Amino acid sequence: MALIVQKYGGSSVADPESIKRVAKRIVETRKAGNEVVVAVSAMGDTTDELIDLAHQVTPIPEPRELDMLLTAGERISMALLAMAIKSMGYDARSFTGSQAGMITDARHGAARIVDVTPGRIREAVDEGAIVIVAGFQGFSRESRDITTLGRGGSDTTAVALAAALEASVCEIYTDVDGVFTSDPRVVPMAKKIDYITSEEMLELAASGAKVLHIRAVEYARRHGVTLHVRSSFNNGEGTYVLNETTDDYAEKLAALQGRLQERGKTVEEPIIAGVATDLSEAKITVVGVPDVPGKAAQIFKIVAKTNANIDMIVQNVSAAATSLTDISFTLPKGDGQRVLQALRAEQSDVGFQSLQYDDQIGKLALVGAGMRSNAGVSAALFDALFTAGINIEMISTSEIRISVVTRADTVAEAARVVHKAFGLDAETQAVVYAGTGR
Amino acid sequence: MALIVQKYGGSSVADPESIKRVAKRIVETRKAGNEVVVAVSAMGDTTDELIDLAHQVTPIPEPRELDMLLTAGERISMALLAMAIKSMGYDARSFTGSQAGMITDARHGAARIVDVTPGRIREAVDEGAIVIVAGFQGFSRESRDITTLGRGGSDTTAVALAAALEASVCEIYTDVDGVFTSDPRVVPMAKKIDYITSEEMLELAASGAKVLHIRAVEYARRHGVTLHVRSSFNNGEGTYVLNETTDDYAEKLAALQGRLQERGKTVEEPIIAGVATDLSEAKITVVGVPDVPGKAAQIFKIVAKTNANIDMIVQNVSAAATSLTDISFTLPKGDGQRVLQALRAEQSDVGFQSLQYDDQIGKLALVGAGMRSNAGVSAALFDALFTAGINIEMISTSEIRISVVTRADTVAEAARVVHKAFGLDAETQAVVYAGTGR
Repeated sequence: MALIVQKYGGSSVADPESIKRVAKRIVETRKAGNEVVVAVSAMGDTTDELIDLAHQVTPIPEPRELDMLLTAGERISMALLAMAIKSMGYDARSFTGSQAGMITDARHGAARIVDVTPGRIREAVDEGAIVIVAGFQGFSRESRDITTLGRGGSDTTAVALAAALEASVCEIYTDVDGVFTSDPRVVPMAKKIDYITSEEMLELAASGAKVLHIRAVEYARRHGVTLHVRSSFNNGEGTYVLNETTDDYAEKLAALQGRLQERGKTVEEPIIAGVATDLSEAKITVVGVPDVPGKAAQIFKIVAKTNANIDMIVQNVSAAATSLTDISFTLPKGDGQRVLQALRAEQSDVGFQSLQYDDQIGKLALVGAGMRSNAGVSAALFDALFTAGINIEMISTSEIRISVVTRADTVAEAARVVHKAFGLDAETQAVVYAGTGR
Repeated sequence: MALIVQKYGGSSVADPESIKRVAKRIVETRKAGNEVVVAVSAMGDTTDELIDLAHQVTPIPEPRELDMLLTAGERISMALLAMAIKSMGYDARSFTGSQAGMITDARHGAARIVDVTPGRIREAVDEGAIVIVAGFQGFSRESRDITTLGRGGSDTTAVALAAALEASVCEIYTDVDGVFTSDPRVVPMAKKIDYITSEEMLELAASGAKVLHIRAVEYARRHGVTLHVRSSFNNGEGTYVLNETTDDYAEKLAALQGRLQERGKTVEEPIIAGVATDLSEAKITVVGVPDVPGKAAQIFKIVAKTNANIDMIVQNVSAAATSLTDISFTLPKGDGQRVLQALRAEQSDVGFQSLQYDDQIGKLALVGAGMRSNAGVSAALFDALFTAGINIEMISTSEIRISVVTRADTVAEAARVVHKAFGLDAETQAVVYAGTGR
């Protein structure tokens, strides 16, 4: 009997009807002979509504109390889901993060999982029950307080449970059919990816793909958990995220490819997994930095103190005549003003001339493990953009990713031409569902 | 430094503004030099809304899951209240029933408190924090599950905490000024009672007075907790419920009377504490019961099996000619049909002739410890009703209570004439606030 962990997001359990639909789906998985453990998010917009309530009481809610407040959300959804399943004649029990043994550190609002002790879950599963666990929440042994995991928390709960319970697969239910070669709202010809390595998925998530949170992918990769991202609206298979660092990777991949071929799919290892775009970042350029050793380090120490998440960094070659250089980096728009202030405060100390802030940029990332062994991917990318008349402002590369920054209003077109150039276009347009699936 | 336990009901914390008002009041108590522990109910109609959600998912929700669901309500209100206090510069921490050590049995929806282990509460209080505890909820050691205490639960939480922490007083905040000699909505000349014995309060609560739940009064009486029922809308003193079974009763009463006299009040031990009315009951009459020993026992064994709460029981003297008697009893209207069915099923066995069901009755109870030593109270009561032309259908008495059943539509008038006859009328009409304070 296989143990399957399933995760349903807020939009999948937005109202009593949706909850009953999800309950039916869970029962079907059980009927098919599996043990089932479910991580569930708060219903629809509950979390935002609770945050709004808190802000009506005080502009800066105490983090401990905010966590206490927000965890009420999953408590509601999980209890309703458990009673829905129970009413269908199957044993179901809900457990809070704390009851489920999700031990975290004490960082309220952004707690990290330090241990998972799923004794009660295991016990309930062994007794034949379907187990519903509150996503997003945990418990600090240190402070004995309730914590929340922050963004991507419910995905992470599911993956952590799958790892601790040695589940055969962790299914992440969402409102799209799986991971696509690009965002179907940007690139209508995007197609569903049948399988992808966790490394590629990590790069896609880091580059703006919203379907899976980077933190959950990291956790899955570290613990060798196979993810299956699929739609809660149909029964089709979605995207398998396979961990290429585990011993059984080749075996699992072969098995999956076999299944795909049986269903009449041509299976070849793609060079490119997908094209991600991101409009959430801004660019700061530090202009006229003295071209002497240690200046870059000095600048990024200042930036680091602000806790901003720096993404791409590019330093131009110094103009020989002036011995000055420009350093540009991208970061989330929300961090922009804070970083500008911090840099301005140290301007005389660093000795740069001025700061430029640009929040009209777009980022495009081409991700694929295949590019490791394929020269010419960069060239093909740049050529496709040039042909389309799209100007590249920054470039940054990793082993399996090439990112470029363009004007914000050209990034969608850029994604479409790159998608086509790398032969990713589907034969038909993707169906885009309403909602976000988070 | 005195430790005060306060309880705020749902209508006191119905929205963010009310929560801020309650927070201010709690802080004032702290500023006055007291340690404060607060039990809080769910906001406004939250509990009813959650029950409604559950019923949209399934007609008969699993009790364990219903408790898990409902406890989300206090989790929200207590976290908001704690953050409101915290934002005013005072340390505040919220605790769930389980964290607060409210150990109950495993009866979901109607759990009984079996132990209170308020270690974390004590610790937080000692560290100078104001403690907010979720009312209504507990934790079963046996099943390791979350439980709820059922009706009157938040009052009971407050009283149980006051007992375990040896608080100097347990303040029950409500939307009326205290306990009144009668319901001001029925008897406009009702006046606030300054103090009352817990035995009288118990009889009043059992007779339909809604301001305190009978279960909380019982718990307070058993553990010697002094209650102070007061308004959350003003700073006036409300009603003290003093426990006449404790050693320091005379001392406490004298101290309270001294305080009242200082404020220019005439203080004399009243004969009658109050007049309660109740329209929630129905009457069942078992007609033509053979007047042989054991028949009453047989009937009430049948009734007991239905778990109905029987209140008054009256057996008429048997008519000598027939050797048949009638037995009447009152019970909550909701239990009526169930009991009728149970009796009908055993009709031939018991040998009664027929059943009569009457849900148009009203109950009036006159309560006062003073009637112990005052002959003539019954006579004065019956006389007042007779003069007003109100027919008495049943009579039942205890040591400190006389209850009568009348037609439902005459009970309000009955309360007014009895209230006046016993000299309870105030000089001015009572102010009636909106809401229920529960």
